[in-house]
Amino acid sequence: MTTLQPVNARTGAAHGKPIAASSADDIDQAVTDAHQAFTAWAATPGDSRAALLRALADALEAERDTLVAWADLETALGPVRLNGELDRTTFQLRRFADLAQRGVPFEVLDDPAVAGSPPAAHAAMVRQRVPLGPVAVFAASNFPFAFSVLGGDTASALAAGCPVVVKAHPAHPGLSQRVAGVIQRVLRTLDLPLGLIGLVQGATVDAGVQLIRHPLIAAGAFTGSTRGGAALQAEANARARPIPFYGELGSINPVVALPVALAARGAELARTLAGSITLGCGQFCTNPGLLLMLDGPDTEAFIPQLVLALSRQQPHPMLSAAMRKAFDAGVRSLMDAGALSLLQGQGTPPAPGPQLLQVSAQRFIERAELREEVFGPSSLIVRCANLDEVRQVLEAVGGSLTVTLWGADEDTADNRALVRSAMQIAGRVLFAGVPTGVAVTAAQQHGGPWPSSTAPMTTSVGDAALDRFLRPVCLQDAPAWLLGRGGVPC
Amino acid sequence: MTTLQPVNARTGAAHGKPIAASSADDIDQAVTDAHQAFTAWAATPGDSRAALLRALADALEAERDTLVAWADLETALGPVRLNGELDRTTFQLRRFADLAQRGVPFEVLDDPAVAGSPPAAHAAMVRQRVPLGPVAVFAASNFPFAFSVLGGDTASALAAGCPVVVKAHPAHPGLSQRVAGVIQRVLRTLDLPLGLIGLVQGATVDAGVQLIRHPLIAAGAFTGSTRGGAALQAEANARARPIPFYGELGSINPVVALPVALAARGAELARTLAGSITLGCGQFCTNPGLLLMLDGPDTEAFIPQLVLALSRQQPHPMLSAAMRKAFDAGVRSLMDAGALSLLQGQGTPPAPGPQLLQVSAQRFIERAELREEVFGPSSLIVRCANLDEVRQVLEAVGGSLTVTLWGADEDTADNRALVRSAMQIAGRVLFAGVPTGVAVTAAQQHGGPWPSSTAPMTTSVGDAALDRFLRPVCLQDAPAWLLGRGGVPC
Repeated sequence: MTTLQPVNARTGAAHGKPIAASSADDIDQAVTDAHQAFTAWAATPGDSRAALLRALADALEAERDTLVAWADLETALGPVRLNGELDRTTFQLRRFADLAQRGVPFEVLDDPAVAGSPPAAHAAMVRQRVPLGPVAVFAASNFPFAFSVLGGDTASALAAGCPVVVKAHPAHPGLSQRVAGVIQRVLRTLDLPLGLIGLVQGATVDAGVQLIRHPLIAAGAFTGSTRGGAALQAEANARARPIPFYGELGSINPVVALPVALAARGAELARTLAGSITLGCGQFCTNPGLLLMLDGPDTEAFIPQLVLALSRQQPHPMLSAAMRKAFDAGVRSLMDAGALSLLQGQGTPPAPGPQLLQVSAQRFIERAELREEVFGPSSLIVRCANLDEVRQVLEAVGGSLTVTLWGADEDTADNRALVRSAMQIAGRVLFAGVPTGVAVTAAQQHGGPWPSSTAPMTTSVGDAALDRFLRPVCLQDAPAWLLGRGGVPC
Repeated sequence: MTTLQPVNARTGAAHGKPIAASSADDIDQAVTDAHQAFTAWAATPGDSRAALLRALADALEAERDTLVAWADLETALGPVRLNGELDRTTFQLRRFADLAQRGVPFEVLDDPAVAGSPPAAHAAMVRQRVPLGPVAVFAASNFPFAFSVLGGDTASALAAGCPVVVKAHPAHPGLSQRVAGVIQRVLRTLDLPLGLIGLVQGATVDAGVQLIRHPLIAAGAFTGSTRGGAALQAEANARARPIPFYGELGSINPVVALPVALAARGAELARTLAGSITLGCGQFCTNPGLLLMLDGPDTEAFIPQLVLALSRQQPHPMLSAAMRKAFDAGVRSLMDAGALSLLQGQGTPPAPGPQLLQVSAQRFIERAELREEVFGPSSLIVRCANLDEVRQVLEAVGGSLTVTLWGADEDTADNRALVRSAMQIAGRVLFAGVPTGVAVTAAQQHGGPWPSSTAPMTTSVGDAALDRFLRPVCLQDAPAWLLGRGGVPC
């Protein structure tokens, strides 16, 4: 029997008992159970969905100390961050509870019959949405609560009326197992089928592939690397019946720091940026991995400030030894492709030190390796001769969750062109602050063109995350009994 | 130089001069021109977009006689249908003009800043949408106006702020070239770049593949066969930067005719169904290719009525000799897989005769060949022993643009279960009438699970078709000048 051994992320030592990996039969059973729970859950009113989501939030809070301790052990993210992340997770669960209770998944567009002849005439039509079916949720390594077993994908799928089968991230199997225990107690208390929220564990890619290829799975939601997400998307497309796959992948999140901003607030921005680059040891999909600066005295003055501010940061250990290895390899790859190191922090082993590198715009555009996400506390400065080069660099990036523009406060032709370029490649464009810290709110858009997402029209954070699991259906000449039930045949 | 020879669809004879196929350079030029037109078009207000769409509609009407004559020659669809289709096409253009003028593509979700600490606190955020960029539109064979050069994909993309490059369907190159001429005159009159609406012609798949793989193309919209659409989607995914691909593919459109409906209105339903099966020689994506009936006296009485009504239909010739060949092969394939022929109409050559076949539910579920779309005037009756078998057959179909339910007028557990099954696999569920005749309206959903669509959350007909070409972008802490421009940096 294959097992997953929980590991202390700070020491690499085994902790507690090994956890059994899910067998092929286990995975099939979890999906079958989710499928069996589907029809009844899809027919629940918003109140029932809200009751489950709130009970899950309450239960997470009740078990906070135990869960944060397990999360800290397996991720080294520290109790402050992890308590905050648990707050965010319960906030998400309750926010989707509110959306379900307000009836968002049941909204109906009523389009009464129009008499006459075509093309203007039509029958009575009603447009609404139906839940897709059981969703395969692939948990992230870097958000052990907020994008894991009870994270945003699970919360939004449940609110939409879909059961979920979560593939736990193998970097925190112990925490995932305990959260699954919390879920089962809640489901039992509410007299709901345990299959409504299933968990599978696997140390290799096989479990994930089996899950996304299972004929009863109706959609996939993934947060992780571009490589992993692309592989799972290919599996979703290779099915006899392809299904929607929502992959939130890698992103390098350009920050364009214009001279006017550096001149006005250089010291403050250097500190802010250093904090954002090293926050959570740089293990965020919105980590500012690319800094675009224009040649000139303001940039020359700013870079040493940034080097100094970064050198004072002491990142904590990474999520796993494998991630640390990948980070070191990523930094080396940037240097092999021509980036010069401006700061090579050594860190306190096993924690990495902050890294700052620099390259010319032309080199950046020429070499695709320089556009790879390096997951960890590093950033790459791209030196641009002018704003045209800035825009060319953004175009070369092609797709990013965010672009940040510092110093575009005036309505000039240059700034308009810059904003256009930023909006063309990003899901979110910031004009102040840093891209880390993604609000769970109505206007959020966490997703952008490839390679930041496999589904750029959708978001994995914020209210619109719900839309991913509801498919529009038009009812034409529906009978009164069905319309009286709001178009839900339950 | 490769050419496309316009052909009289009724006689197979060449008509007029051959038309040059677009070279690789031509295609590259068309996309480059579309890309150059993009920034300015994306920045146009709704009024300007509406002005173009209405001018195109007016110009089509002004050239109606010439265009309908060319369409009739190349498609054999007949002047009544083609004049109606031209009306529908101008209706679509004007409807998207109205949507643009009403500001739909520019709608903004304002999410003001919330003070305090996370997770509830957030910066000022505005969610809006940006046009994707140049769209590759793949014209359909069976709608030479409404899903062709100036069809719904083109109209919705232009309204969204996207230029288009249309790949003409090789079955009507002469008409496509004339419509392109109409477009160029309109663009010149309005002083708009000719690259805003480009046309490429190609007799082989190469032109389409080159188009969808072009790095400056931002999305694809396709109406056609499952095989062709799947191939183009694979190309869209295989790009260095995958892009959204909206394929409206094959569909067999089950009609469930319950005994209660057959008993009450059998003769009328037989005539209606016979008309829908043979309308346009069955060359509709919503053609009712599958008829589900329960064993029993009402069905026994109905089938001869349907055979008789169908035998009286005289379909016109098909769109091309290749389609006719494919139709005959499709019918043979159903029979090879075990379907029995109930009616083998001979037709007046080159027109096919109507075909009606029958198979058991168990056989239908076992043999995937029986679920293939047969494009033309045929339908397959699936005989079911009970409602459970009806639902199993729907589940085996898996995805369809429509499901029609006749006789589900009462609120019973059986009907609720049937409606659930129908909604699970279809984009539109009808409770009266026939699936052919797709209204261009607010509530329309023309798209469903695979194999009826590559993007089941979207529609290619109706107001929501616009959404396919707009990507959400969140502006965080946007400066006053940008908000004052409605978030559009033009």
